[in-house]
Amino acid sequence: MTVFGVDLSNFVDTYMAIAIKILILIIAYAIINPLGKKVISKTLRRTMKKDRISEGRIKTLEKLLINIYSYILIFIFITMLFGIFDLDLGPLLATAGVLGLAIGFGAQGLVSDIVTGFFILLEKQIEVDEYVSTAGYSGIVEEVGLRTTKIRSFDGTLNFIPNRFMEGVSNHSRGTMRALVDIGISYDDNIDHAMGVLQKVCDEFQQDERFVEGPDVLGVQSFGSSDVVLRVLGKTVNMEQWAAERDIRKRIKEEFDANGIEIPFPHQVNITKQA
Amino acid sequence: MTVFGVDLSNFVDTYMAIAIKILILIIAYAIINPLGKKVISKTLRRTMKKDRISEGRIKTLEKLLINIYSYILIFIFITMLFGIFDLDLGPLLATAGVLGLAIGFGAQGLVSDIVTGFFILLEKQIEVDEYVSTAGYSGIVEEVGLRTTKIRSFDGTLNFIPNRFMEGVSNHSRGTMRALVDIGISYDDNIDHAMGVLQKVCDEFQQDERFVEGPDVLGVQSFGSSDVVLRVLGKTVNMEQWAAERDIRKRIKEEFDANGIEIPFPHQVNITKQA
Amino acid sequence: MTVFGVDLSNFVDTYMAIAIKILILIIAYAIINPLGKKVISKTLRRTMKKDRISEGRIKTLEKLLINIYSYILIFIFITMLFGIFDLDLGPLLATAGVLGLAIGFGAQGLVSDIVTGFFILLEKQIEVDEYVSTAGYSGIVEEVGLRTTKIRSFDGTLNFIPNRFMEGVSNHSRGTMRALVDIGISYDDNIDHAMGVLQKVCDEFQQDERFVEGPDVLGVQSFGSSDVVLRVLGKTVNMEQWAAERDIRKRIKEEFDANGIEIPFPHQVNITKQA
Amino acid sequence: MTVFGVDLSNFVDTYMAIAIKILILIIAYAIINPLGKKVISKTLRRTMKKDRISEGRIKTLEKLLINIYSYILIFIFITMLFGIFDLDLGPLLATAGVLGLAIGFGAQGLVSDIVTGFFILLEKQIEVDEYVSTAGYSGIVEEVGLRTTKIRSFDGTLNFIPNRFMEGVSNHSRGTMRALVDIGISYDDNIDHAMGVLQKVCDEFQQDERFVEGPDVLGVQSFGSSDVVLRVLGKTVNMEQWAAERDIRKRIKEEFDANGIEIPFPHQVNITKQA
Amino acid sequence: MTVFGVDLSNFVDTYMAIAIKILILIIAYAIINPLGKKVISKTLRRTMKKDRISEGRIKTLEKLLINIYSYILIFIFITMLFGIFDLDLGPLLATAGVLGLAIGFGAQGLVSDIVTGFFILLEKQIEVDEYVSTAGYSGIVEEVGLRTTKIRSFDGTLNFIPNRFMEGVSNHSRGTMRALVDIGISYDDNIDHAMGVLQKVCDEFQQDERFVEGPDVLGVQSFGSSDVVLRVLGKTVNMEQWAAERDIRKRIKEEFDANGIEIPFPHQVNITKQA
Amino acid sequence: MTVFGVDLSNFVDTYMAIAIKILILIIAYAIINPLGKKVISKTLRRTMKKDRISEGRIKTLEKLLINIYSYILIFIFITMLFGIFDLDLGPLLATAGVLGLAIGFGAQGLVSDIVTGFFILLEKQIEVDEYVSTAGYSGIVEEVGLRTTKIRSFDGTLNFIPNRFMEGVSNHSRGTMRALVDIGISYDDNIDHAMGVLQKVCDEFQQDERFVEGPDVLGVQSFGSSDVVLRVLGKTVNMEQWAAERDIRKRIKEEFDANGIEIPFPHQVNITKQA
Amino acid sequence: MTVFGVDLSNFVDTYMAIAIKILILIIAYAIINPLGKKVISKTLRRTMKKDRISEGRIKTLEKLLINIYSYILIFIFITMLFGIFDLDLGPLLATAGVLGLAIGFGAQGLVSDIVTGFFILLEKQIEVDEYVSTAGYSGIVEEVGLRTTKIRSFDGTLNFIPNRFMEGVSNHSRGTMRALVDIGISYDDNIDHAMGVLQKVCDEFQQDERFVEGPDVLGVQSFGSSDVVLRVLGKTVNMEQWAAERDIRKRIKEEFDANGIEIPFPHQVNITKQA
Repeated sequence: MTVFGVDLSNFVDTYMAIAIKILILIIAYAIINPLGKKVISKTLRRTMKKDRISEGRIKTLEKLLINIYSYILIFIFITMLFGIFDLDLGPLLATAGVLGLAIGFGAQGLVSDIVTGFFILLEKQIEVDEYVSTAGYSGIVEEVGLRTTKIRSFDGTLNFIPNRFMEGVSNHSRGTMRALVDIGISYDDNIDHAMGVLQKVCDEFQQDERFVEGPDVLGVQSFGSSDVVLRVLGKTVNMEQWAAERDIRKRIKEEFDANGIEIPFPHQVNITKQA
Repeated sequence: MTVFGVDLSNFVDTYMAIAIKILILIIAYAIINPLGKKVISKTLRRTMKKDRISEGRIKTLEKLLINIYSYILIFIFITMLFGIFDLDLGPLLATAGVLGLAIGFGAQGLVSDIVTGFFILLEKQIEVDEYVSTAGYSGIVEEVGLRTTKIRSFDGTLNFIPNRFMEGVSNHSRGTMRALVDIGISYDDNIDHAMGVLQKVCDEFQQDERFVEGPDVLGVQSFGSSDVVLRVLGKTVNMEQWAAERDIRKRIKEEFDANGIEIPFPHQVNITKQA
Repeated sequence: MTVFGVDLSNFVDTYMAIAIKILILIIAYAIINPLGKKVISKTLRRTMKKDRISEGRIKTLEKLLINIYSYILIFIFITMLFGIFDLDLGPLLATAGVLGLAIGFGAQGLVSDIVTGFFILLEKQIEVDEYVSTAGYSGIVEEVGLRTTKIRSFDGTLNFIPNRFMEGVSNHSRGTMRALVDIGISYDDNIDHAMGVLQKVCDEFQQDERFVEGPDVLGVQSFGSSDVVLRVLGKTVNMEQWAAERDIRKRIKEEFDANGIEIPFPHQVNITKQA
Repeated sequence: MTVFGVDLSNFVDTYMAIAIKILILIIAYAIINPLGKKVISKTLRRTMKKDRISEGRIKTLEKLLINIYSYILIFIFITMLFGIFDLDLGPLLATAGVLGLAIGFGAQGLVSDIVTGFFILLEKQIEVDEYVSTAGYSGIVEEVGLRTTKIRSFDGTLNFIPNRFMEGVSNHSRGTMRALVDIGISYDDNIDHAMGVLQKVCDEFQQDERFVEGPDVLGVQSFGSSDVVLRVLGKTVNMEQWAAERDIRKRIKEEFDANGIEIPFPHQVNITKQA
Repeated sequence: MTVFGVDLSNFVDTYMAIAIKILILIIAYAIINPLGKKVISKTLRRTMKKDRISEGRIKTLEKLLINIYSYILIFIFITMLFGIFDLDLGPLLATAGVLGLAIGFGAQGLVSDIVTGFFILLEKQIEVDEYVSTAGYSGIVEEVGLRTTKIRSFDGTLNFIPNRFMEGVSNHSRGTMRALVDIGISYDDNIDHAMGVLQKVCDEFQQDERFVEGPDVLGVQSFGSSDVVLRVLGKTVNMEQWAAERDIRKRIKEEFDANGIEIPFPHQVNITKQA
Repeated sequence: MTVFGVDLSNFVDTYMAIAIKILILIIAYAIINPLGKKVISKTLRRTMKKDRISEGRIKTLEKLLINIYSYILIFIFITMLFGIFDLDLGPLLATAGVLGLAIGFGAQGLVSDIVTGFFILLEKQIEVDEYVSTAGYSGIVEEVGLRTTKIRSFDGTLNFIPNRFMEGVSNHSRGTMRALVDIGISYDDNIDHAMGVLQKVCDEFQQDERFVEGPDVLGVQSFGSSDVVLRVLGKTVNMEQWAAERDIRKRIKEEFDANGIEIPFPHQVNITKQA
Repeated sequence: MTVFGVDLSNFVDTYMAIAIKILILIIAYAIINPLGKKVISKTLRRTMKKDRISEGRIKTLEKLLINIYSYILIFIFITMLFGIFDLDLGPLLATAGVLGLAIGFGAQGLVSDIVTGFFILLEKQIEVDEYVSTAGYSGIVEEVGLRTTKIRSFDGTLNFIPNRFMEGVSNHSRGTMRALVDIGISYDDNIDHAMGVLQKVCDEFQQDERFVEGPDVLGVQSFGSSDVVLRVLGKTVNMEQWAAERDIRKRIKEEFDANGIEIPFPHQVNITKQA
């Protein structure tokens, strides 16, 4: 059937095919969209139960993931719709490809930041107010973002660290901390006597509620060039290790003074020759 | 219907299709263009409210993003228009692709600079006149650009730093700063006495309005090879930490002199042998 | 045969082809799916027998691999189904390609983590509660994950290390450990005498059940600037090396004192000139 | 209409289409060519007004950009012309693509040099005859090129630095420079007295026209192991900082000698023991 | 010929072509499969004869290579079979491509490990029980794998090193080793006398069967700040170098004592001034 | 018109098109080939005039560039010829692409070497017999190649340096060189007196024809821990700086001896305590 | 003409085209194969004449290059043959592409090794039995391979170095070597006298056939903290530099002793204070 020289049957044929395609596309979208969201939610929440992550954090991650998912889906839907109308999207996509590549190379740092940030949040590697060391920075966490983490150094500096540079995180706020004091005694002093005095100091501190374990005298750690080094070791409540160490040092000095045990200065044997 | 051996019906068929395609394209452009701009504006402004970014800065970022968006959209529009006229854009795009790749590799630094610069602005990591350390440079920020940041070192040097090299920024102008003085006393001096004198000096400075917190004596920081090191710690108004430290040092020296507490020189025990 | 100007025979022809294609596809899926899973299981279990990996670990790896395999297969199946209905998946895939590339660049760290983590598990490089050094961190392993490994340092810090940064792992919990003590004697002392005294101390410790081999005196390790360095070497039960070394050091000091052998201080010949 | 079995109408149809395509192409070229050049010129000149870049430099950059633009445009024009004649440029372009990729990888350094060089010129980071430090080289700039920058070190060496290695530029010729002299006094000297003498010397130099600001005494910078370190700080005219520092040092030494203030040698407390 | 509106001749035509294609494909497979395996075997064995590699090792490598080869061939065969049935494998392959790329980036480390491991085995760079240094690790090789090499340090630690990090291997178990002793004598001692004594010690050790060559006195190696350094050099049976050096050192000390040659302590000329 | 069932008119049609295409191709080749060569020559020679490069060097570069150009052109010509005969070059090119990529990754170092080498030659960064430092090597240039540069160290070693590792070149043979002598005087010596003596020595050397500028006394360079450091600075003919410095040093020592000015040894204040 | 509903004329048409294509392909192969080999041979041999490379080495390189060339050519030939039979090689090649990419990333090190190795051989950078330093290894070359170079350290270790890590090669066996002795004399000694004695020693050694040039006294190299450093410089036959230096050192010590010139110990001025 031709109208003005145009074959109508062909038209009908073509547009019926288009209609069917659009229908299939819409159905596919209607199925995949909620399905994907559910998969994301469920996967996240299942992980949550295992790892005991707080509800608030789960919601943040959930929202982020569903957002990304929706944007991509809509983008694909529109692109395919255009494709059905036969608008030759090749150019558009090739253009996008070239641009995307150029940007992809430049922006991979950004993606890398977000991927790392996502896992830092998910795996609860750091929390606000914890004391951490990472990427050469050290201090109290002020904010954990998807792209950047803010750490306040002890000297007051606020450090902004893109997450991708955090190649390993040392979290100093997860458990009891070690208090360690190395103390040198003279080669002339009696090791047993000195260790006895040290243990007495340690015994005092074992009552101290800051200490979770010890402190105790370990023994002869090394032979220094001028002193025999003895080591005292204990475990304290988190963040109390420095104060505890300072107090142990003060007490050791006082006890050593009282017991006549010398903390020696560097020694040198001088063999005198006349020029 | 044929004219001079040319099948007109085919012509009409073809050009009607082209007309429809152009129409769809223009409509799509007319819808996507303002929509995209609005999405950009809204997203930015919503972020603004959350982060309290100044209106001026928002406008700079908004203009930049809308510019980029417009250029890309026009480029795609033209490309698709050409595609409709069946001008085989493949070659053009392949050419662009090869060029784009070559340039993309070389220019990824530029894109990387801009992406990083964008987030430094958006996240307010540094502001003009702040004192920051980054990428091995340290000083007062003179300008934060999309591609380059200018930092004036304290020795007067002006440093130009491409943003991509700023792998983490230490901002020293965000909050109170630490004033820390380590002072060594002789092994023969009484620690309690020395700490008392130090605390007296600290008490004086606590009236000083430069100090926000402390200063206070912490205790025995370490056993040096010739001295017992005591630590004094406080928090000062930003940028006043150095002057405060200098004044504390001067007062400590004066008080130690007055109280006969010695700041010891390196010690060495010489055991003399005759050759 | 045409209905309303549409060529039905063409329709039948087309849809019969589609039906056949779908059939082939489903059959292919039905064959490849269980086959692939079996191949994965068998390969894993065959490796297991060789390497004596615990059943639990095998199951974890098996589940992971089959999960990945299933997701990929389903994705391909759906994509091909769409392809059969002629929905021009080019756009979708090109889109996916550009996105995938951008993400691929950014997320390669993640893939790299998982690949490395997989082999750390498979090759049993580290187990929970072992003492290891890797990527500049040292301590007791708390968890070996596919993406991150948690190591507790001896000072109490919990370190999170993305697996890709573990460029070589030093596992200190696999076998007997070396106990090594270097001790300097005076240039005036008789080497044979000192080595005799040392060997006597060593003989005592050879009864010690912590020692698996030795300890024994090796000989003159080096000429120091003030002392002749002698070396004592033994092998101990794992993790007992430090306590053993500390005890040997204490005994050597006591025996040297008893036998009049001096551990010398740094020497210097002073040639005195009058200015 | 067929001639010798060839369908002429088809011929006419085809070649008419070609003619139309060529026409569109030429028109497009004729529009895009001058338009692009104008956009380049205007963008550059608008930037110029904002940044006060000299007319000569603008012309250099303008010429460069228009050259690059023209080469690309002509290349695309020729390629598309070939495409219209249906010469299957795929092979050519694929070939170019493979070659381009291989070269692109190798030559990305070159592109990177030019991109960096372009911005060094545009942002006026360095000018000829300025004293700069970059990429581990330090000296007077002799030439700023698109690919290479020539810097003459103070020892006479001429350094050629590919621009891409300039990861940040320190320009020492942009503003007043700091003159800083640290001077140690004995622990026995009176700090107030010494600071008074230093301030007297500073007062002399404040008349010196080389000084823009100060010099002044800051206070006690640190406790050295043998001396109390005092700091003098001022700002001088560019490039006069070294001479100024040398003159201040000479005057301080003379005034300290005159006032009996000692610049101390390293101290050591020797505790003598008889072996 | 049409049945129910379907053109059968077309069917026959199509399926005959498919049959022919499948036939060609199977023939090609049947030829290429055994051919490739033979080429692999022969190439390996030819290399073997040249390099005298043990039969066991050849078999391991052969099996590995033929496995890889078979997997690839089967994969291609299946893919092409699908292609013949016109199942539009484009989507599948593009999907695979995107996935492959993402994984390729992440897993290149794995491929790199295997390639390096292959050549370490083939070139016999290291064997089990050899003493090697590589990638910052040092010790006895416990296992050489395709992906990981296990090295046992002398302190008992077991190190797992992914092969790609072995940027150069130092194998200390391939040939005689150098025994080198540097010994300082006083500036007052006669060089000829000391060298005579040393040579006498060397002569003793030349009988020692551990020595393959020397030891001999080389001469004055350097002027130290307090001593004239003489060097003794020899070559020993592998792994005997340390024991040999220790024995030489002991003998030299004894002979020097017997001959009154002094191993000097650091000297310093003290010019005494009264303050 | 059909012969044996073959439509001849189609044949004629097809082959006429092929003939036309070949013709166009040959014409294009005939035009582009000499044109490109001329463009290369002219561009090079125009650059030459500006930069005064020697004729020999121009010819080397010209030959290289025209060679590369010709190879690429012939390759494209052949490829397109094949394309016209419809031999489906896709496979060939895809194969080439995969190979090219694999090789491209591996061989990018080579391309990088040549690109760098090309610019080292073009920009005359180094010439044979010049004294340069680059990539950690230092010495006299023996050969500048497109891929490798040979530098003879002063100790006689011949260094081969792939050009891509030359990240910046320090050329020590382009202009007058600095002669700099730092000399310490005692804190007790009179600075003015010492500077007078130094200037007298400098005056002697100003007659020396090796000196282009100076030498002159600059002033007090720094306060050392035991000496006041004075600086003498001059400029000499290239490569004469070391001999000049040695001669100045000798003369200064002689003049200082004659004038009783001391070059001081390290000082230390010893505060003696009895143990 | 149709048989069983199949259009034979189409068959003839198709297969005639295939036959022609195969013919062209075979002819192209027959021409390109020997041509390429000749080009490789000639290019190599022409380079040989210029660089005087030994015939054996030329043959090794020639064989390698022709092998690679043949493999690639056969691969392309087969692929194109398949293409002619319309077996849709797209899938195969895409598969190969994905695999190739994955492997390409991982194996680029291997290609890089071979490319570097090829040029090390071609440019004769190192030969067996030469003494070279490269990639942090130093010793005698035992084998130069296409992938790995074996270097025997002086301590007996055999080092395997993948060629790509050789970023610059220092060859110590190409020409005369420098013998350099720095010797310190006392500040009290007369420089002219000491230089006279040194020159006398030098004159002795000038007769020594190991010396190609010098040795001679250069002059005052530097002012040490305790000594005036004089330098003696000469050039020796390759590998004789160390023995020559040792002999010069011994003779200088003897002559200095005979002439009463002191090699001084570190000096220190002690200013004694009573505590």
